[in-house]
Amino acid sequence: MTTPRLPQVVLPDEVSVVNIGLPLFADAIRDQAVPVQQVDWRIPADGDMASIEALEGLYGVHADAIDRANAEAVRRLDQGVPILVDIEAAQALVPDLSGQVLLHCGPAIAWAEVCDPLRRSMRAATVAEGWADDVDGADRLLEAGTVRLEPAYRHDVVVPMASAIGPSAPFFVVDNREGGTRAFAPINQGPGETAWFGRETPAAIERLVFLREVAGPMLREVLDRSGPIDVFGLAAQGVQIGDDVHMRTQGTTSLLIRNLLPHLASLPDDGRIELARFLSFNHMFFLNLAMAAAKSVALWAEQVEGSSIVTMMCRNGTSYGVRLAGSDQVFLAAAPPVSQAMYYPEYGPETASPDIGDSAILELVGLGGAAAAGSPAVAGFLGGSMSDAVAVTEEMQTICAGESTRFKLPTWNNTGTPLGVDARYVVELNTTPKVSTGILHASSGVGQIGAGVAAAPAECFRAAVLALAGT
Amino acid sequence: MTTPRLPQVVLPDEVSVVNIGLPLFADAIRDQAVPVQQVDWRIPADGDMASIEALEGLYGVHADAIDRANAEAVRRLDQGVPILVDIEAAQALVPDLSGQVLLHCGPAIAWAEVCDPLRRSMRAATVAEGWADDVDGADRLLEAGTVRLEPAYRHDVVVPMASAIGPSAPFFVVDNREGGTRAFAPINQGPGETAWFGRETPAAIERLVFLREVAGPMLREVLDRSGPIDVFGLAAQGVQIGDDVHMRTQGTTSLLIRNLLPHLASLPDDGRIELARFLSFNHMFFLNLAMAAAKSVALWAEQVEGSSIVTMMCRNGTSYGVRLAGSDQVFLAAAPPVSQAMYYPEYGPETASPDIGDSAILELVGLGGAAAAGSPAVAGFLGGSMSDAVAVTEEMQTICAGESTRFKLPTWNNTGTPLGVDARYVVELNTTPKVSTGILHASSGVGQIGAGVAAAPAECFRAAVLALAGT
Repeated sequence: MTTPRLPQVVLPDEVSVVNIGLPLFADAIRDQAVPVQQVDWRIPADGDMASIEALEGLYGVHADAIDRANAEAVRRLDQGVPILVDIEAAQALVPDLSGQVLLHCGPAIAWAEVCDPLRRSMRAATVAEGWADDVDGADRLLEAGTVRLEPAYRHDVVVPMASAIGPSAPFFVVDNREGGTRAFAPINQGPGETAWFGRETPAAIERLVFLREVAGPMLREVLDRSGPIDVFGLAAQGVQIGDDVHMRTQGTTSLLIRNLLPHLASLPDDGRIELARFLSFNHMFFLNLAMAAAKSVALWAEQVEGSSIVTMMCRNGTSYGVRLAGSDQVFLAAAPPVSQAMYYPEYGPETASPDIGDSAILELVGLGGAAAAGSPAVAGFLGGSMSDAVAVTEEMQTICAGESTRFKLPTWNNTGTPLGVDARYVVELNTTPKVSTGILHASSGVGQIGAGVAAAPAECFRAAVLALAGT
Repeated sequence: MTTPRLPQVVLPDEVSVVNIGLPLFADAIRDQAVPVQQVDWRIPADGDMASIEALEGLYGVHADAIDRANAEAVRRLDQGVPILVDIEAAQALVPDLSGQVLLHCGPAIAWAEVCDPLRRSMRAATVAEGWADDVDGADRLLEAGTVRLEPAYRHDVVVPMASAIGPSAPFFVVDNREGGTRAFAPINQGPGETAWFGRETPAAIERLVFLREVAGPMLREVLDRSGPIDVFGLAAQGVQIGDDVHMRTQGTTSLLIRNLLPHLASLPDDGRIELARFLSFNHMFFLNLAMAAAKSVALWAEQVEGSSIVTMMCRNGTSYGVRLAGSDQVFLAAAPPVSQAMYYPEYGPETASPDIGDSAILELVGLGGAAAAGSPAVAGFLGGSMSDAVAVTEEMQTICAGESTRFKLPTWNNTGTPLGVDARYVVELNTTPKVSTGILHASSGVGQIGAGVAAAPAECFRAAVLALAGT
């Protein structure tokens, strides 16, 4: 009987490694100067079996129908041409906005659940509307439900940050004539002591009155003289000059003001200089216009049935809501913190209110985080290097079905920004849209304390995918 | 007697190649998939023995003194703070500007040598000054020498493109208080039918009258209300938003207008709207301000003795002049064509006037070609890719002694733009500064027909280096 011969193992002189899984192993190998290739492989849907089952259908038997629907939804987001056609009081535009009612950011919410900065904003709006003499009186009306709360999105209105808007506030009217859709947004309140940043001081209330009494009527006159304004035409120029048209709108605002200058100069004496002062210091002026424009094309995309393209993301500082094209269901999750952020001196994440506002609509049309790669200002908030900003856009690219034909980034090989967030990709990769945003204080009423990028919560996308799969 | 043994030659299995000299060899090797490294080696000073001899001294026994002088000249170009302090008629600011005299771009020139677009501009200015009733009458006065010609640079004035400026034209006054130097530039005439583009139509003449009668006095009033303006502070913001602040000044112009908006709005009725219209369509408005600012710091640097830093480059469409710090000698060469260019439809290099204007001063302070790497607009004129624009800036880097601490390019790792052109490097490498510029028609009087980048001629730098070396 012979001893069985063991197979001879010949070890190679040099090894190269492909690592699948924890990057720690790759790092350890790399530290030994051995070539290693890390595979970016993830467990689909973070291992959630229900989601995986839903995706099997959505990528399987239903794939053709969904891909077709998605192509049409993406085409609408990309090809709609939103035009600013009017500026008017909200109550003249939104039929059911009668009596003591406030439109607020994000999903529907009861007063008891409303976060501190949005409460302050609601009290400021209640006083500005003349329903209460002061913020204490306003608080009682809101607590009692005498002043009702309505989510803005239900009326095709988008409002940024902690906005609460009464019926007398002026709205921009933006028409997407291609799709026959129309959306609204209030005039941006500007930086500093303002209600949309969660302030309820006399100055913040005074600003709301100024917008109603002076800015609204005067801007309407400017628009009458200038004629309709192609909002995304301006935004496209803005992304060429470093605006992401969400966190930073300074360049686009300046372009718009220069275009309108002859009409601003020919306004009557009464109010002209006050309006000029307001426009001069309000570098966020274009933000709300861009939001209304984005909403108008999103409403068109929403008419496409059976699509996995996300057409709404909105937050009220308590909850986060998303909606897919072809569905009127809003899927909810808790509002997340703004995770990648830069704070003003003396502030930090421990005093920050969660992510808030309807402005995340911008990320769905190729702006904001999708356009970060072109924005030195966004890079500044992420650590300073353009590669940090590029990473945000490239991550958006992994979850988008298309790219913008109008928003092109010169710093990113003139490529169009990612467009059309596909909820299937979001759930499969467990990568949610990154939204560039301001950060408000959670309780003190001091207003903005920083800015950064917030990742949307995954749960609401999972729920949307399960619903689309009919499971 | 044994046969001598030949050495055995063992050819390697693989070769890697370092190629010195013609890149064609490297290309041929690369085509065979063999690794090759091309060495960017050039014959110094293009083989010109007199230049090489001069450089031996300037890099040799004189190196320490020159390096010290250059460091100071670069410091002045970088650290001067040019402030717009006033707007006044040229004749009130430039003492010897009396009688019928025109300040023109570039080196001194006789009427017989003046190129077609500059002649037209001179005739337009002569009519606008009221010295002649029409351009034919103006032509006779210029031909006869009744209207005298003076190069603007001799009076610390910089004028862009084919500008000719009479004593009644308003000037920006820019002070560099650090250095006690002051420079002037006229108000930019705007796009279209204007004299600085070589037009002499009634509209072009009317624009000159408008600048004198309306824009000058009104802008002075705006400046009175706004207070002094930090010109390079604005320019630094401009380079962050894609302006090279030479070929493109649109972003900086818009920022400035937004800053000034409240003061523009509070101007008296008479002229306010006309001024607003002019500012609204004049995207080049900031150009002349930037030029005056650049000249004010260049004048400070010029006070440094024994330096090889270039402090003036100017062109009149016929000749090109350069000057080094510490010298009042202007070295001349023929004005070159604009070599890398994009033309308007129906036009091309065969109908283009040579490089013209004093604006090349911008390239000496870290703007224009030095800032091309940050400008998608410049890239557009060079072929469309940012790498084309980056190549211009990187070439400038090879001939500059320092980098700007205020003009930083987010798209170029936040590096400061190259600053302080060293004539030694220019001559040694036979690489001249690249200037971004507009292009005028050579003869028809239609004005601008394109834009591009022009390389300065080498001869004037060689002459300057020879003079510095005392040979």
